Amino acid sequence: MSTPAAFESAIKSIAKSGSDFMEVGVYLLHRLEELGVKSLFGVPGDFNLGFLDLVEDYPGIDWIGNCNELDAAYAADGYARIKVGSIGAVLTTYGVGELSAINGIAGAYAELVPVAHIAGFPSKCSFVSVIASNLQGQRRVRYHAYAQAAELVTYSQTILNDQSTAAAEIDRVLSDCVIQSRPVYIALPTDIAHTKISSERLQIPLPRIPAPNSASSEAAVVEEIVKLIEESQGDVAILVDVGTVRHNTVDEVKAFVEKTGFEVYASPMGKSIVSEQHERYGGLYVGLLTRPEIKNRIEDAKLIISIGAVKSDLNTGNFTTKLETVRTIELHHATTKVKFAEYPGIGMKYLLPKLTAALPPLSFKSTQSPLPKWIYPVPQESTETISQSWLWPRIGQFLRPRDVVVAETGTSAFGVLDIPFPEEAVFVSQILWGSIGWTVGSTLGAALAVREKGSGRTILFIGDGSLQLTVQELSTMLREGLKPIVFILNNNGYTIERAIRGETRKYNDVSNWDYTTLMKALGDVDGTRSKSYLTKTKTELDTLLHDEVFAAANLMQVIEIRMDKMDMPYVLKHSNKLVGVE
Amino acid sequence: MSTPAAFESAIKSIAKSGSDFMEVGVYLLHRLEELGVKSLFGVPGDFNLGFLDLVEDYPGIDWIGNCNELDAAYAADGYARIKVGSIGAVLTTYGVGELSAINGIAGAYAELVPVAHIAGFPSKCSFVSVIASNLQGQRRVRYHAYAQAAELVTYSQTILNDQSTAAAEIDRVLSDCVIQSRPVYIALPTDIAHTKISSERLQIPLPRIPAPNSASSEAAVVEEIVKLIEESQGDVAILVDVGTVRHNTVDEVKAFVEKTGFEVYASPMGKSIVSEQHERYGGLYVGLLTRPEIKNRIEDAKLIISIGAVKSDLNTGNFTTKLETVRTIELHHATTKVKFAEYPGIGMKYLLPKLTAALPPLSFKSTQSPLPKWIYPVPQESTETISQSWLWPRIGQFLRPRDVVVAETGTSAFGVLDIPFPEEAVFVSQILWGSIGWTVGSTLGAALAVREKGSGRTILFIGDGSLQLTVQELSTMLREGLKPIVFILNNNGYTIERAIRGETRKYNDVSNWDYTTLMKALGDVDGTRSKSYLTKTKTELDTLLHDEVFAAANLMQVIEIRMDKMDMPYVLKHSNKLVGVE
Repeated sequence: MSTPAAFESAIKSIAKSGSDFMEVGVYLLHRLEELGVKSLFGVPGDFNLGFLDLVEDYPGIDWIGNCNELDAAYAADGYARIKVGSIGAVLTTYGVGELSAINGIAGAYAELVPVAHIAGFPSKCSFVSVIASNLQGQRRVRYHAYAQAAELVTYSQTILNDQSTAAAEIDRVLSDCVIQSRPVYIALPTDIAHTKISSERLQIPLPRIPAPNSASSEAAVVEEIVKLIEESQGDVAILVDVGTVRHNTVDEVKAFVEKTGFEVYASPMGKSIVSEQHERYGGLYVGLLTRPEIKNRIEDAKLIISIGAVKSDLNTGNFTTKLETVRTIELHHATTKVKFAEYPGIGMKYLLPKLTAALPPLSFKSTQSPLPKWIYPVPQESTETISQSWLWPRIGQFLRPRDVVVAETGTSAFGVLDIPFPEEAVFVSQILWGSIGWTVGSTLGAALAVREKGSGRTILFIGDGSLQLTVQELSTMLREGLKPIVFILNNNGYTIERAIRGETRKYNDVSNWDYTTLMKALGDVDGTRSKSYLTKTKTELDTLLHDEVFAAANLMQVIEIRMDKMDMPYVLKHSNKLVGVE
Repeated sequence: MSTPAAFESAIKSIAKSGSDFMEVGVYLLHRLEELGVKSLFGVPGDFNLGFLDLVEDYPGIDWIGNCNELDAAYAADGYARIKVGSIGAVLTTYGVGELSAINGIAGAYAELVPVAHIAGFPSKCSFVSVIASNLQGQRRVRYHAYAQAAELVTYSQTILNDQSTAAAEIDRVLSDCVIQSRPVYIALPTDIAHTKISSERLQIPLPRIPAPNSASSEAAVVEEIVKLIEESQGDVAILVDVGTVRHNTVDEVKAFVEKTGFEVYASPMGKSIVSEQHERYGGLYVGLLTRPEIKNRIEDAKLIISIGAVKSDLNTGNFTTKLETVRTIELHHATTKVKFAEYPGIGMKYLLPKLTAALPPLSFKSTQSPLPKWIYPVPQESTETISQSWLWPRIGQFLRPRDVVVAETGTSAFGVLDIPFPEEAVFVSQILWGSIGWTVGSTLGAALAVREKGSGRTILFIGDGSLQLTVQELSTMLREGLKPIVFILNNNGYTIERAIRGETRKYNDVSNWDYTTLMKALGDVDGTRSKSYLTKTKTELDTLLHDEVFAAANLMQVIEIRMDKMDMPYVLKHSNKLVGVE
């Protein structure tokens, strides 16, 4: 994969045939496909219909029409999380469409997800007429507003109002998207979308990895870290966080773990990046909420190597992590910290392989010391009521290798975090941004990505309150023939909010829907394309989970699970501390 | 009602008891109630729960929990449109919540709707900890982003991080909201919401009308306009637009019409402000799309008096209005234009009464000349298929005085525009901003406002494509015991987009839902609180519309109307010209 510098020099040496032309819109589609986009999400609107003609006629990319724009942004986010190294893409119209999607783009920005937001704009001429003839000038206000709003939530932006620079601009923002792993914004005017330009730049693949580290600085850092590792006699704990997967550095981390045999832990956002079945994997580190048997092992290690860390509230047990700077090394996408020293520009993707190469194999104390096994047995409980304490370990038995498990912010995310995942199972949750309802859209995107990759099942856990924000996207999953297993935890309202405040307040109640009728209403008119279940007891749910036809997930399945409204996972009972709103 | 200046001087002379204290949150609720807010819309979130305790305990305001934040903003918008002279209010949490609502606030800004957006913020201290401990600083980026994003879509903003100025800041932005008739933004940190402050300012009601016009300048303008009216010998056409109702100047306009007897027309956004049954009312002026029998009458009048005009695309037949500046007077909220002369600061609310007083009653030619009657007969059609050409005049027969008719952007809005409304019937549509799905939320807000006012029925017309964006808010209407009549025009997709482009394209299709099952799924589990109907033929629909029990609207009713996907109202067939995207 080429770097930005290599790309620029290659571009300069393109053989100019002067004959190969295509629409700007088609050029954009070629670059999106090159970056792994096979499904484009969004909603049609007056100013993207012309581009949509090109999309519908483009063989390599399917149009996935969503019910609304926020759901579409969530779907592109979920899609990008599963297709590591690729990006997601969402298309809206300008103004109403892009502003409806902006919270989805902001969440992708906060959680380092590469999503390209394409907004269909009016042609320059029609825009001028709108502006000129509007006394109050609302449209003018809006016009600037769009670009400004996009700047707030994306890494880079472009308005393609000049055909001579359109291709270069598309290349610039799309490489930013994949290299920085952040959202970008492309405003595509209706006239430009169909303007023909030279496609010669397509001869050169887009850069997808950052520029290499400065060799001398990098060598010094490697030497320093090796020295510290030797001094620690291998009493080293590795902490893996989400930056590792977003910046496509998972293989480099795994090689480092295999070579050294250091024990490895994950943050909540880093869950499932390193296999939770690995002999050297110890579990989740969440500050005060860490399992006692491993907490000191991490915090007291002579050396802590933190990789791709994102220090947000829930990801750190509300900032209760205790990692002494004097014993900590932080590896990031574009910087490295060794104790108190910072090395700007030294990125982990190039640094880690050199570090791995510089270390002798498995020559350390920690390879002998056994890690306390992370087990999660199903408790014996006297009542038939489905409890949080019973549900999650029982789900743990249900999970299979390569399952993609999407967990909504709330009791679902806290519950799923406690489950030791099988091999290659993937955890998907919006831990930092925490926009409720996000998982319905992102499950659509994740399930499509899973189907493209030909891997396992997609399983969603969501509460009734969160589902009601974005419920309509279940119909898109049905239309696309996807087969997610959707568990709806019906506990009569916003239980996660009850945990924080207003346990018995009406504002935490939501309407009680007939969840087993939803799929019929949302398009499975004759009931042949989905199955819905209601489970009120442990026996009912346990029987369903044992059913091999159910587990095979050969069609879309929705399961309502009735639970007590004040029942919640252990950690959530401490969530005043966690969320820090009191 | 007092002006800003009168308010400020009254505040200075408050009797200081030094004893009367209340929470900042309660102070805010008092001011909201004073401005007519009886229903507060929104979604609970970590950082507004404390304020929600105060809301739930506050007797004068009901909390209306919505399914999501965009719907909540739409609801506050619809609520404010019906309660003329009052405002609407929406509460979200910061970040995820406020960004989800921003398109709804932007639409209110564009269409001059006074909506107060209250965002629950973290307390200052916890915010600092979040920022300080976040390596990547996403939260910091976001933090600034919120205030900046709010500035783009609101008239004024405040972050209440200082208890000593909190009351004055609340007063400042809420008076802006009602006087400017634009959205405002109030960030309410969790700690400040419960901080006690003096409530003495509540002795003085908020200013709700702008400062008076400069007397000398105003007198000159009145004299000039009277002269032009006399020169025109009363060949005068009045055009009423939405600014009239938003700036609470309807009574002043009606008095002007009664006194002069000038014929009066409305823009699409101005529909139903002046009674469409009034003998001097001629119909809608939409440039090229105006009915031929009145078009010349308006454009050739010796003098045209345009009141509260908003010159947006659909409101002007895509800028095809022909009003010669040399024969046109424009009255606005804060300025007046007489031919080519501008008079900044001369607002219509004070100017119109003076103008009315200065004119002799009914002494003009136009009072004798009969206006062509605006009739809309139901056509005889050979087929049973429910056609657009048949539906809208038939609906015209169904409408009653004081009905509130909400029409979704698309075939519904174009269809309803063609119907001459009964006395005091109100037209609600988002003509300028045109965010599809808006009507579901706004119907909730409108129906609540109608119930508060004790007036008539609330009737929604929406297409299947638009409904799917915001469908969940139907469940909130049900929960609140509202009884809207919801007509769903099922024409298999985005027919308004097909009119523009992609007639047979897949991207204009949407999933076909079982609309008569929706209400059961969304909460009417035993089917006692709503009724759903499916009509496929003229006879079926006609019979239903004749049913007095149906027409009485004693419970929530949903009617699916099957229509051909390429059938559309006359004007929409010309909508390439209209929307100007080609």
